[in-house]
Amino acid sequence: MLINCVAYQNGEKLADIPIADISEYVTRPDCFVWVALRDATDAELQEMQMEFNLHELAVEDAHHGHQRPKIEEYGDSLFAVMHLPEMDDKGELNIGEISIFVGNNYVLSVRNRSRQDFLGVRSRCEREPDLLRQGAGFVLYALMDAVVDRYFPFVDALESELETVEAQIFVKGSARANIERMYALKRNTMVLKHAVAPLMEAVSKLHGGRVPHVCASSQEYFRDVDDHLVRINASIDSIRDTINTAVQVNLSMVTIEENETTKRLAAWAGIFAVATAFAGIWGMNFKNMPELQWEYGYPAALFFITAVCGLLFRRFKRAGWL
Amino acid sequence: MLINCVAYQNGEKLADIPIADISEYVTRPDCFVWVALRDATDAELQEMQMEFNLHELAVEDAHHGHQRPKIEEYGDSLFAVMHLPEMDDKGELNIGEISIFVGNNYVLSVRNRSRQDFLGVRSRCEREPDLLRQGAGFVLYALMDAVVDRYFPFVDALESELETVEAQIFVKGSARANIERMYALKRNTMVLKHAVAPLMEAVSKLHGGRVPHVCASSQEYFRDVDDHLVRINASIDSIRDTINTAVQVNLSMVTIEENETTKRLAAWAGIFAVATAFAGIWGMNFKNMPELQWEYGYPAALFFITAVCGLLFRRFKRAGWL
Amino acid sequence: MLINCVAYQNGEKLADIPIADISEYVTRPDCFVWVALRDATDAELQEMQMEFNLHELAVEDAHHGHQRPKIEEYGDSLFAVMHLPEMDDKGELNIGEISIFVGNNYVLSVRNRSRQDFLGVRSRCEREPDLLRQGAGFVLYALMDAVVDRYFPFVDALESELETVEAQIFVKGSARANIERMYALKRNTMVLKHAVAPLMEAVSKLHGGRVPHVCASSQEYFRDVDDHLVRINASIDSIRDTINTAVQVNLSMVTIEENETTKRLAAWAGIFAVATAFAGIWGMNFKNMPELQWEYGYPAALFFITAVCGLLFRRFKRAGWL
Amino acid sequence: MLINCVAYQNGEKLADIPIADISEYVTRPDCFVWVALRDATDAELQEMQMEFNLHELAVEDAHHGHQRPKIEEYGDSLFAVMHLPEMDDKGELNIGEISIFVGNNYVLSVRNRSRQDFLGVRSRCEREPDLLRQGAGFVLYALMDAVVDRYFPFVDALESELETVEAQIFVKGSARANIERMYALKRNTMVLKHAVAPLMEAVSKLHGGRVPHVCASSQEYFRDVDDHLVRINASIDSIRDTINTAVQVNLSMVTIEENETTKRLAAWAGIFAVATAFAGIWGMNFKNMPELQWEYGYPAALFFITAVCGLLFRRFKRAGWL
Amino acid sequence: MLINCVAYQNGEKLADIPIADISEYVTRPDCFVWVALRDATDAELQEMQMEFNLHELAVEDAHHGHQRPKIEEYGDSLFAVMHLPEMDDKGELNIGEISIFVGNNYVLSVRNRSRQDFLGVRSRCEREPDLLRQGAGFVLYALMDAVVDRYFPFVDALESELETVEAQIFVKGSARANIERMYALKRNTMVLKHAVAPLMEAVSKLHGGRVPHVCASSQEYFRDVDDHLVRINASIDSIRDTINTAVQVNLSMVTIEENETTKRLAAWAGIFAVATAFAGIWGMNFKNMPELQWEYGYPAALFFITAVCGLLFRRFKRAGWL
Repeated sequence: MLINCVAYQNGEKLADIPIADISEYVTRPDCFVWVALRDATDAELQEMQMEFNLHELAVEDAHHGHQRPKIEEYGDSLFAVMHLPEMDDKGELNIGEISIFVGNNYVLSVRNRSRQDFLGVRSRCEREPDLLRQGAGFVLYALMDAVVDRYFPFVDALESELETVEAQIFVKGSARANIERMYALKRNTMVLKHAVAPLMEAVSKLHGGRVPHVCASSQEYFRDVDDHLVRINASIDSIRDTINTAVQVNLSMVTIEENETTKRLAAWAGIFAVATAFAGIWGMNFKNMPELQWEYGYPAALFFITAVCGLLFRRFKRAGWL
Repeated sequence: MLINCVAYQNGEKLADIPIADISEYVTRPDCFVWVALRDATDAELQEMQMEFNLHELAVEDAHHGHQRPKIEEYGDSLFAVMHLPEMDDKGELNIGEISIFVGNNYVLSVRNRSRQDFLGVRSRCEREPDLLRQGAGFVLYALMDAVVDRYFPFVDALESELETVEAQIFVKGSARANIERMYALKRNTMVLKHAVAPLMEAVSKLHGGRVPHVCASSQEYFRDVDDHLVRINASIDSIRDTINTAVQVNLSMVTIEENETTKRLAAWAGIFAVATAFAGIWGMNFKNMPELQWEYGYPAALFFITAVCGLLFRRFKRAGWL
Repeated sequence: MLINCVAYQNGEKLADIPIADISEYVTRPDCFVWVALRDATDAELQEMQMEFNLHELAVEDAHHGHQRPKIEEYGDSLFAVMHLPEMDDKGELNIGEISIFVGNNYVLSVRNRSRQDFLGVRSRCEREPDLLRQGAGFVLYALMDAVVDRYFPFVDALESELETVEAQIFVKGSARANIERMYALKRNTMVLKHAVAPLMEAVSKLHGGRVPHVCASSQEYFRDVDDHLVRINASIDSIRDTINTAVQVNLSMVTIEENETTKRLAAWAGIFAVATAFAGIWGMNFKNMPELQWEYGYPAALFFITAVCGLLFRRFKRAGWL
Repeated sequence: MLINCVAYQNGEKLADIPIADISEYVTRPDCFVWVALRDATDAELQEMQMEFNLHELAVEDAHHGHQRPKIEEYGDSLFAVMHLPEMDDKGELNIGEISIFVGNNYVLSVRNRSRQDFLGVRSRCEREPDLLRQGAGFVLYALMDAVVDRYFPFVDALESELETVEAQIFVKGSARANIERMYALKRNTMVLKHAVAPLMEAVSKLHGGRVPHVCASSQEYFRDVDDHLVRINASIDSIRDTINTAVQVNLSMVTIEENETTKRLAAWAGIFAVATAFAGIWGMNFKNMPELQWEYGYPAALFFITAVCGLLFRRFKRAGWL
Repeated sequence: MLINCVAYQNGEKLADIPIADISEYVTRPDCFVWVALRDATDAELQEMQMEFNLHELAVEDAHHGHQRPKIEEYGDSLFAVMHLPEMDDKGELNIGEISIFVGNNYVLSVRNRSRQDFLGVRSRCEREPDLLRQGAGFVLYALMDAVVDRYFPFVDALESELETVEAQIFVKGSARANIERMYALKRNTMVLKHAVAPLMEAVSKLHGGRVPHVCASSQEYFRDVDDHLVRINASIDSIRDTINTAVQVNLSMVTIEENETTKRLAAWAGIFAVATAFAGIWGMNFKNMPELQWEYGYPAALFFITAVCGLLFRRFKRAGWL
């Protein structure tokens, strides 16, 4: 579905143009065309391929989707794929995709399986003609920056979930719930990692060393995107590392708790075993058991048993078993 | 066993040719020969070695089989080995092999221990003479692409097996079955990893930097294969990482379950130990135990014991031990 | 908030100058201006941006804060961000930030969320005009050196906390406290790691190979800072590695302790079960049980039971179960 | 001990020569000398050092032995050390050593602490004069190839031992034996790893980039050796990785087994505790316990107790505890 | 404290010279001065700094001590720091330090916190004038070689301690002692690692590629030192890896042992619970219990109980629980 198709000159919007006119505007030296598609059909992509003279393999990737994030050079043009993480209504993390074709005189973005639009990026660019004058490379930057900015809330969500789990780690009886949450957290972290790490690697080639021509004049901006990605990636790695430790600590806590349970069980079992043993002894049927005949034998026995059990109770209490 | 032996010119099929004529066609400047063998015998390989002037070490590797995936340059020609994973009838993962010799004017593929043929690759190539015109390098690409495409279903199978196991991880009593499945999954993942990782490393040298001459004109296609391999490899690493966490989580779950069992055991043991202790006390043979003489002593005792046990039951229930 | 704004010439302090005069002094060839801000407002930063002609992206970073440590080149000038760890009143580790802009003729430092000032750095520099003559690059070094020197006490604190925990690892009954402290220690170590590792990577580019012009004459000093960072980083890695082992060892100790508890429980349970079993046997109501009629049957039975229990006690004692 | 000392010309054996004549043959342009020593004495090594003009440090290494595998350049000559693993009569893995000095016109091999000879290598070389004509570099290759070929059976042995252990992992009651075997396996794997990994690193410098002059004409052969080493190394890493997982899985199995034991214990203890409790209740000495007077009270009680225990048994059976 | 100060010419000792004359000898073209200090005071270091014109930062490092091992270039001169591990009287591993300043015409070594001297190095050098003629670089090598040679016994000690622990791993009841020893071993291994790994990295730059001028003529000797360090480092890594596995194996052994204890406990508890249950049944007070009246009821009951318990005992024995 076509969202919009606009021609720019010297950083200023020239006009909304029909698709058929694209190839004409693209040949004008100081002009570029910026097209946005959404869930593009096969026919739309083929039309674009002809208008912009896109490489077959890149179009195929945009069509099939489910690519890993990457930036590929095809001659003078670039093909970029980025992931768009999205929390669906059930709280599951889904991954949409945006494919961007960039040439000297055009930008074509194709958004798939995502409900987030990039209209804001276009209007912000149009408000800053000084920057937009840098051309298609700057539009690529603006789109990337917008995508990467959308990663931050996910990292924040993962970090706050981690903090919630951490607060529960040393609470007794929560081990099972903790471990389930940690596992889910780890999974989501990996989903985000797969969006960030390959993109970081790709963006690092857009500044510093040999840079594709179309991005050359916006190098410092791409370094800024790279810096954001490095920061996000470091946070993700830190979360993963912490989860690994937390899983181990959680296991330790379960084992410690089990040890405490065993001790408590041992203590009470011991106390009642002693009572039962003494009761058993005075329940023996020997003919000659003088204490059985005593007037106060019974209360004395009860007192004795209670005393022994009380003594044990105190010892166990002191040893921290109860 | 010879499957077919065809000469091509300008991307068009020229003719099926007898093996003896190969050396003649190979010398024609704009012509190349594409030979496919299957489970080649020693004699067949020697014949090919002479026709194509192959390097002794490469022929030896193709003969012995059980190589790791690799791409080696011998002067102007290339020697590639790829793994062909195959699920046998018992559901075990077996690894066949395809060895490919590529020169400026020839492609020779030798398939070993695999039931999958590559006839589809040849017919697809013949339907696209524009691409096939790129020569032997493009055939290498087409074969590689076909091999790599066959890895995807295996990755999908591993991922769906992983999801099945994950769904079982937090189910009580399934720990033993889980751990067995995870271990099998890990093994299969490693088999696939050994097919993918070395190949990825090798293919990455067929585009970008210094590229063997025969592949130079098809660089973007090899980058596409590389991209697929990187994607598969990332999935495999992700599966392995998840299994490692899952094994740990599974161990935690077992320990948590054991703790719960111990608590339940402790609770019931405690309740019956109390009943036994009281029964033991009233079973003592002291002469003077007034309550034994009471009219309703027995039901009172039963009620008392039941009450105490009930009280304990409620406390344990509340504490989550029962 | 402006802290001070001073112009220097040939390593000597020229004068405290008003902000408005900065742009004038900056153009003098052998003169540089050193400005220090604290928790700078938006307006202050914009003023500085104009006076020093700073790059928009760098100013944005300094304004937003929460950057990872880095050193970026913008044309001839450098933009550095460093973390300032600080123990707050509750003993929590907080991270402040200092952003430094360095050009050929100026240094601008902006300190955020930190109570530590750098007045000492300025006065030390003014006491060494020979070194200060090297210019803005040396001031950058002096500030970096001061920041890095503040990391050492934190590393020392982590190491001594680690030693305290280690001394507790093999003490019985301290597992729960240990694991909590180790976890907190790991977290703090990671906070420091995030301050040190990226900075180390960045500083390593200020000496040796291609060095930014402004730092070229102070290369050996930056190598010294780098060396300190490498040392700190090695200590941090060593602490992390040790904690990982310690967590595992702690788990082993808990399991060993549990084993000992189980054995002790088994031993006492065994002893009392034997007593109860014998008492139960002599409590049976068979008519013909000769020993019940013996004169000294009861003491004999008591003696027998005590003897058996004593024997068991000795055996368990020897086996190390009690 | 001298094994043999032969001069070759144009790939053909010239003559067995006495040691004293070595220096003469070495100076002939198209001739080279191949000497093999075994457990060389100090005197023999000094003699060789003079004849071949070997570097003092290399001779020292060959003399002391216990080097790690390596290939070092001394001017125009090479010094290589390789490990020779050997299973001794007790089934322990011992490591012998072969040191090889290679110059333009000589090869000197010194074998230490190993019962395996390399006579086969010499005779195979002599049967292939075409290859032997490549000179001393080819002899180095032939020796390396022979050494590396001897690693394969060890890898196979480790792999089959691993398979045996894996088949035992999920068998109950074998955990202790498994863990001992896995530990021994890990140790042996590491011994082999130390033989392979440094050698692989060293051989990788004998082909591809800047190659020592003496090896230049045999590059493709050294790449073949490298390929074998990479394959072996990958197998070793795979074994190590699998052992690590297997150790964890084994621990999980033990914990699972312990859980099952605990449950079974809990079940039987519960059943008998119930029986004992009821028996205890009917063993109380209350005067007024009507059921004690019933004609069929006793069988009814027995039936009741059996019924309750049977019920419990069925429930535990169903819950999988028994 | 000055140990000695000697001038050398052409590899021969010229004379012991007073410190004041150093600067004179240093300017002679074919002469160099070798000074050794021990626990140098501030004044001594300043004197040396003036005589040899040392860089301020290097002198500071030598003064403060507690550096990590490193080799730094200051213009034409080198500054090296190495660790000197030492077992003190209590068996604790302490780390001394030697700082070495090397220029074209001088070597200055400063030893701190170590009781080991390097007199042997000097006398060995003086006995080999041919090598000493290489100049200050060779002295640096000789000192390094001596330091590195002192690492070997520590590695051997760690390895033999590891073997001792390994021999104990599968012995029952030694888990607690094992884990303590392994932890101590790991700590000591890390101390040595910190001495070796950074030094190895530094020495690797003294041979092969771009080498500091003063070391250029002794490259092969530095490669020899590097080779030793690589060997030591590999041993250390191997020890660490083995300890990690051993800690895990030890934990498995504890868990296995606990399982065995639990089984044994379960077995005995079961046997006595059965005896108690039967005794309890015959201890019930039902009026009509015919077997109680039998002449041989009591021995029959005893026999029955013993038989059942014996049967259980045999079953448990066979199942390996006892």
